[in-house]
Amino acid sequence: MTAAASLRLFELAGADPDLRFSPHCWKVRMALVHKGLSAEGVPWRFTEKAAIAVSGQGLVPVLLDGETAVSDSFRIAEHLESAYPDRPSLFGGEMGRANARFINAYVDTLLIPPLARAILMDIYGRLAPQDRAYFRESREKRFSMPLEAVGADAADRLAEVRRLLQPLRLMLKSQPFLCGSAPAYADYCLFGLFMWARVVSDVEVLAPDDAILPWREALLDAFGGYARQAPHTGG
Amino acid sequence: MTAAASLRLFELAGADPDLRFSPHCWKVRMALVHKGLSAEGVPWRFTEKAAIAVSGQGLVPVLLDGETAVSDSFRIAEHLESAYPDRPSLFGGEMGRANARFINAYVDTLLIPPLARAILMDIYGRLAPQDRAYFRESREKRFSMPLEAVGADAADRLAEVRRLLQPLRLMLKSQPFLCGSAPAYADYCLFGLFMWARVVSDVEVLAPDDAILPWREALLDAFGGYARQAPHTGG
Repeated sequence: MTAAASLRLFELAGADPDLRFSPHCWKVRMALVHKGLSAEGVPWRFTEKAAIAVSGQGLVPVLLDGETAVSDSFRIAEHLESAYPDRPSLFGGEMGRANARFINAYVDTLLIPPLARAILMDIYGRLAPQDRAYFRESREKRFSMPLEAVGADAADRLAEVRRLLQPLRLMLKSQPFLCGSAPAYADYCLFGLFMWARVVSDVEVLAPDDAILPWREALLDAFGGYARQAPHTGG
Repeated sequence: MTAAASLRLFELAGADPDLRFSPHCWKVRMALVHKGLSAEGVPWRFTEKAAIAVSGQGLVPVLLDGETAVSDSFRIAEHLESAYPDRPSLFGGEMGRANARFINAYVDTLLIPPLARAILMDIYGRLAPQDRAYFRESREKRFSMPLEAVGADAADRLAEVRRLLQPLRLMLKSQPFLCGSAPAYADYCLFGLFMWARVVSDVEVLAPDDAILPWREALLDAFGGYARQAPHTGG
């Protein structure tokens, strides 16, 4: 694994540098382990724009693969697929890659916004001190209200997340993973959402009898329990 | 196309037998034309259970391929993919097939229910007389209210459909179809929703400036304008 020695992944971290909570970084973490690649995970805070300036933008995940800097979780997954074609496939071909982009968009547009509102104060409480003013200002602008007001309807937002997961419940009646008999990138796109909540919050995204639980548990257990072993707050 | 000569597709039809409005039948219609197969489309009404008894259940689409009867739109697509492997692929491989099942579930669980409410009285008004009592009874049971009350919040339901299409808008910034550079089955799963509304209703699912329009128009134009030429009520 010579190539793996040169991989560095900048990941959003909290005051505790081991709390890696970004859903988008988790998509990439799972993609790396799926490919059998190990990267050095570099803790990064919202305000450390200079550290990732080489990527030409200001958000993580950023992957440094030798001399190449790649930002945006989906573009990183595409990079891994093309740079490491002999490793297990993330997409299963061009049509699967295109489908995964739609599924990623489903997660990002429909599920992340309501869950963000439900766990926003948990995120805020675990941020490094230097990130708090940035986070408060950017999120108050995004939601057009004080940070403390965003989570006022947290129970409703959590109910919305559960409702919008209905496609997964129907699909699980026919197959165990979004990518078929084994997980791949489309699964990780959705699983990142659950790791976000698990790492940073006590909020339980799923009810105790949710048909989605076996899928989530299988992904926590995948690759020798890689995700389950990550430092976390919630259950 | 010897094989095609033996294909018969039972499709939901209105009082006008040329109005074929089921979203699930449209998924199959597009899959057939994608494969370059022509099937005899047999108009079928809700109450004609005996005509499809060979399929072991009571809903269309039902495809008769020689001696084989297949029900359920997704299973029909899988049948076409395996029975006609030399024709253009609907899924692009196993992972694409699995992804398509999730995307189909997204359409069926999140988009079809609110759109059904918005166009329910349009459907009812175009049914064959013998179907009306069945439709009223089954839908009043499903929605737990009189048929005429289901559409009372049609504007809200239409707004919900538009909101839940947000993943497609984000995806279209990066690629023209759910399946990549050309449409395939995952696109048809979603396109069936639009044909449902077009064939049976004047409701305009998309606002005139919606970024989804080029995708919908491209699918109306695909295969020599196959879908655009179908008899319809709406625009």
